[in-house]
Amino acid sequence: MRATLLHQAGDVRVADVADPKVQQPTDAVVRIVLGCICGSDLWPYKSQPLTEHPRQMGHEFLGVVEETGPQVTTVKIGDLVVVPFTYSDGTCEYCRAGLHTSCEHGGPWGVNGVDGGQGQAARVPFADGTLVPLPVGEDSELLPDLLTLSDVLCTGYHAARTAGVRAGESVTVVGDGAVGLSAVIAAKLLGAEQIILMGRHAARTDLGRAFGATDVVAARGEEGVAAVRELTGGRGTGRVLECVGLKDALVQAAGVVRDGGTISRVGAPQYPEVPLGFPEFLRNITLTGGVAPARAYINELMPHILDGSIRPGRVFDRTVALEDVAEGYRLMNDREALKVLVRP
Amino acid sequence: MRATLLHQAGDVRVADVADPKVQQPTDAVVRIVLGCICGSDLWPYKSQPLTEHPRQMGHEFLGVVEETGPQVTTVKIGDLVVVPFTYSDGTCEYCRAGLHTSCEHGGPWGVNGVDGGQGQAARVPFADGTLVPLPVGEDSELLPDLLTLSDVLCTGYHAARTAGVRAGESVTVVGDGAVGLSAVIAAKLLGAEQIILMGRHAARTDLGRAFGATDVVAARGEEGVAAVRELTGGRGTGRVLECVGLKDALVQAAGVVRDGGTISRVGAPQYPEVPLGFPEFLRNITLTGGVAPARAYINELMPHILDGSIRPGRVFDRTVALEDVAEGYRLMNDREALKVLVRP
Repeated sequence: MRATLLHQAGDVRVADVADPKVQQPTDAVVRIVLGCICGSDLWPYKSQPLTEHPRQMGHEFLGVVEETGPQVTTVKIGDLVVVPFTYSDGTCEYCRAGLHTSCEHGGPWGVNGVDGGQGQAARVPFADGTLVPLPVGEDSELLPDLLTLSDVLCTGYHAARTAGVRAGESVTVVGDGAVGLSAVIAAKLLGAEQIILMGRHAARTDLGRAFGATDVVAARGEEGVAAVRELTGGRGTGRVLECVGLKDALVQAAGVVRDGGTISRVGAPQYPEVPLGFPEFLRNITLTGGVAPARAYINELMPHILDGSIRPGRVFDRTVALEDVAEGYRLMNDREALKVLVRP
Repeated sequence: MRATLLHQAGDVRVADVADPKVQQPTDAVVRIVLGCICGSDLWPYKSQPLTEHPRQMGHEFLGVVEETGPQVTTVKIGDLVVVPFTYSDGTCEYCRAGLHTSCEHGGPWGVNGVDGGQGQAARVPFADGTLVPLPVGEDSELLPDLLTLSDVLCTGYHAARTAGVRAGESVTVVGDGAVGLSAVIAAKLLGAEQIILMGRHAARTDLGRAFGATDVVAARGEEGVAAVRELTGGRGTGRVLECVGLKDALVQAAGVVRDGGTISRVGAPQYPEVPLGFPEFLRNITLTGGVAPARAYINELMPHILDGSIRPGRVFDRTVALEDVAEGYRLMNDREALKVLVRP
């Protein structure tokens, strides 16, 4: 089959790799119908040294079950399924607690003999614990929306949930990428009354407004902090959703969070340490969040997509064929696209 | 009156300062009956450069109200009161939310024309918002226990509360100082079933066992982490109370916390940044805590002292007269004493 390989920074190629097949009795093989490129794919795209063992890229996908191992019981051949961005056994203590990303037998796509999601198919370990059937057909117009359940919508939702967003509250979202915009959707779903989106790309913040942002602050740094404080009676917001992953974004988050408030970080950290020292200690600032256990949220969020009340797939503004995936990376890396669909 | 002044590192002296008097209609003047030295007093004791304006030291004290301003209504002359380690107006948005340390008119003792707690008396701003009457006499044997409501017991309790300790859970306490031992008391009060105390001073960890610690781990670093994991089925504990304030203690806390768990820090940070990067992001570790709003907890904790169910005053193992306060600092700094009472 064809799959996306990253050889080194800036060098993404589609190549032939071994066809996936069931290896364990709990495996399934999924033919990929729709995949996409994640903001987190851009970090290795910017920095990966040349390697002789290029990684299969992609971790957000949905597709049709083509083969199942003998122990698989919850999905069957022909089912359309969405695939969370990590696989998980669904039975360990962490999975039962809803923290599927810490699954004792789980892991990420594209390494350790597991395929990536930007390709024609993938072997799915622990199919029962991982896959979630979708009640629509392959031709549904909702597929891009449903694909966001794989990662980006759940990641935004994880930020809002772990920050403890409650009805009537004020929330700041730092970052206008696809995760930040998903966090806006999530904050609104949880009933936030004031949602301040910090971002400086008008096309993106406009979409943020459509998703529910009540205010947009384009300024950054101290100026941006001052603007948010002006919008919030000087005190900042009790919940801040950090959707970037850079230290500057955390500093900004600390600047706009209210004393006693919570910053939830869901941007993959590109920093070794968190700038929350003595001043933030005196202000009782909490830092929470982390990698989103998407599997835990899919069943909760799917109905909002199916009934049309949220349209998270609007974050996709470009589509490429699998053979053109390199162009998709370029578009996102050059900020010409917000988030790119990949059609095998 | 006589009060404790820190001139520079290692140079603590008792000297004459102006007698406190009511300056604002909301002030009270308290004659100090009992004070003490805090672990956090040792940071400036170790590092303060020579100054011509030495600070009045001390922020944990109880005493008798000697004078009140005309607007003071909740305490009267002759009342024995305990004094939280910050003063607060009791009426602002933060105080009403229980975050008195962020009070919009509050502040610390010993600066800005406010006295310290290691002296003969102190002017107390916002007496109604700050002071809590004690239902015992000046000669009560419970005074050392009640004095811990000023800071150390509430600080340990803040760690346990913000970490979300619940009945039946496993908790690790990092640090066997007076705050760590208070955190053991707090974890037990909240119903923790397993309380692992990490500390290497046998006299202190023995007291920790008396307070409710079920296990003691004397090892530090990787060895200490391995020992805690062995006690907890390999996963660590969901709640970790960091009661030291050094980066090494945070690293240890991150090592022993369970995936998805919470570290609450109450040791005053002697570090600019928190070592919680990508690995802890992947594990969904939360960092909470901060400076304790003691005022919010005093009424809740006092009954446990009055009925004898907790004896937090056992952390005091030495007493000095005010004139000998320098010896008290030396004893604590040299680890000859755990925590020192100061009797004016």
